Amino acid sequence: MEFAPVTPPEQRYHREAVALQARLTKPPGSLGRLEELGVWIAACQGACPPRAFARPQVVVFAGDHGVAAHGVSAYPPEVTGQMVGNFLAGGAAVNVLAVAAGAAVRVVDLAVDAAGGDVPAVVTRHKVRRSSGRIDREDALSVDEVAAALTAGAAIADEEVDQGADLLIAGDMGIGNTTPASVLIAALTGSEPVAVVGRGTGIDDAGWIRKTAVIRDALRRARKVVRDPVALLRTAAGADVAAMAAFLAQSAVRRTPVILDGVITGAAAMVAEELAPGARAWWVAGHRSAEPAHQLALEHLDLAPLLDLGLRLGEGSGAVTALPLLQMAARILGEMATFGDAGVSGPSDPLPPPR
Amino acid sequence: MEFAPVTPPEQRYHREAVALQARLTKPPGSLGRLEELGVWIAACQGACPPRAFARPQVVVFAGDHGVAAHGVSAYPPEVTGQMVGNFLAGGAAVNVLAVAAGAAVRVVDLAVDAAGGDVPAVVTRHKVRRSSGRIDREDALSVDEVAAALTAGAAIADEEVDQGADLLIAGDMGIGNTTPASVLIAALTGSEPVAVVGRGTGIDDAGWIRKTAVIRDALRRARKVVRDPVALLRTAAGADVAAMAAFLAQSAVRRTPVILDGVITGAAAMVAEELAPGARAWWVAGHRSAEPAHQLALEHLDLAPLLDLGLRLGEGSGAVTALPLLQMAARILGEMATFGDAGVSGPSDPLPPPR
Repeated sequence: MEFAPVTPPEQRYHREAVALQARLTKPPGSLGRLEELGVWIAACQGACPPRAFARPQVVVFAGDHGVAAHGVSAYPPEVTGQMVGNFLAGGAAVNVLAVAAGAAVRVVDLAVDAAGGDVPAVVTRHKVRRSSGRIDREDALSVDEVAAALTAGAAIADEEVDQGADLLIAGDMGIGNTTPASVLIAALTGSEPVAVVGRGTGIDDAGWIRKTAVIRDALRRARKVVRDPVALLRTAAGADVAAMAAFLAQSAVRRTPVILDGVITGAAAMVAEELAPGARAWWVAGHRSAEPAHQLALEHLDLAPLLDLGLRLGEGSGAVTALPLLQMAARILGEMATFGDAGVSGPSDPLPPPR
Repeated sequence: MEFAPVTPPEQRYHREAVALQARLTKPPGSLGRLEELGVWIAACQGACPPRAFARPQVVVFAGDHGVAAHGVSAYPPEVTGQMVGNFLAGGAAVNVLAVAAGAAVRVVDLAVDAAGGDVPAVVTRHKVRRSSGRIDREDALSVDEVAAALTAGAAIADEEVDQGADLLIAGDMGIGNTTPASVLIAALTGSEPVAVVGRGTGIDDAGWIRKTAVIRDALRRARKVVRDPVALLRTAAGADVAAMAAFLAQSAVRRTPVILDGVITGAAAMVAEELAPGARAWWVAGHRSAEPAHQLALEHLDLAPLLDLGLRLGEGSGAVTALPLLQMAARILGEMATFGDAGVSGPSDPLPPPR
């Protein structure tokens, strides 16, 4: 599929917000990254002062991965489907964090290796297939499947924006999904397998060796198509990651800011920037994950993470944890007094030496 | 004054919370510092799962400093009193951040160089004096004044805890106050003036040179009394910083957790740990300030900051910015499903090699 052109956040409101920051009752620059965030939010919203986000929406992209049957994860593949149920019941980490941060959570099943059963249609209506090809030996998806996944991801972004979401977060759920994410990041950054392989959910040393071999073999296949983002997703991603990439690209097309999460979102974001150049101007990095490939993705995207708390859960959890910072940044611009309003003096004229 | 002994947070609930973390539907350790924070909160509250904090309270300690008349700040001294009005009107950064984070803000005038006028009695009833001695040439406080400031700080902690505060944050407001804070930190860490002097609210190069000279001279006086925390406060602090130190010490005596803010709170906390050994077990560092002395204070206290966003405002702003992380950490333990409840499988048994 083709994405419409990405237009950047509005420079005019960026400038207005910079000027407003200087009038607020605080030393210039003293709120550091909160000031930068507030200015970015103003530019994204086309409003100064910006509004606190009224409807932040998390979308968790769930899918299984063929490689998971081959010892690359500490958890068995059936956990993906079980966790979909946990998201729907509100018991997962991202649910709890989202309630605390004032965000809603939706889970979508793109490729869970389960029949569906009692899962609501709203979860499964974008489903592309069950699981993915074993990427060390075969493509993750067919040509038709990757097209369907991209269409699904863009449609999900459209659905959320059309329903009023003013801030989007993409989360992931899929046993084995750090393997394709690491392959995508290694391919797009020209890195060796050993530089990207991490412990994922906590794999042991023997598993780490198996995972590294799978990444090595998959990377050999992925490198051949690295200049074609759709072919790269078909070869090495899976329907969940491909849909997430399209979701991130379409969010930018729709001028809706995004907080990126960890290594899966980082991999999808790198491909999304290829699919829709300029999309990264609509993203902020919520945190730095403990997964080594994530740092490479952040550097490639030139995004500095807001938090560095050793998180490595996925689900969008790190992005949701950063959400209060964005709300605070927006409210600073909207609610603080100016020097003029408050009758507070500005900086002194330079003083003579005291003695 | 003498502080009652500090008792540590309860190890039993620490252990219970560690065990509960392992049963929640997430890979062990995958929430990084949020897991550590949750365990600490459980131990502080003596409850597992811990409760989200119901009444976080910020207390801003306002005071002027004799050195401020001598070119060590970018702002004129009258800003301290003007900002007290701004806090009362809700227009300062800490007010806006506190509303966003669900905390209340109280400002107390310990040593503002103003008559009071229309400021409510609740703000001024602990006032010790106007401003402080010029610490490069004379003591900040008399023997009686430092005793009064310590009594005031401990009383303020008691008042807040007795009124139901379950989490405390100390903030600062005082033009020139990074100078005494830097002197305290340099004295207690054996550092040279140039290692602690920072730009404060944004002083220019000529001011930086003046500030460094003031810190050098004050440090020469402070080093003589570095082993006596009360004498150190009398020599180099000021009533606001002395009261803050007592507030932090008494909060620990009262078994109430504290989020520390930046360089002023860091200096007060170092003295508080001398006044009431073991108090630091009740503190978490909200952030790393841009002021260079703050890093020395954090290392001395062996506290790792939660945020590193280039903040350098004071007022408690960095601590309040970190408050949502504590609330999230508490709620993770209280609200997430366990593997058993959610019917989610745990880690796999080790798999054989895949090929």
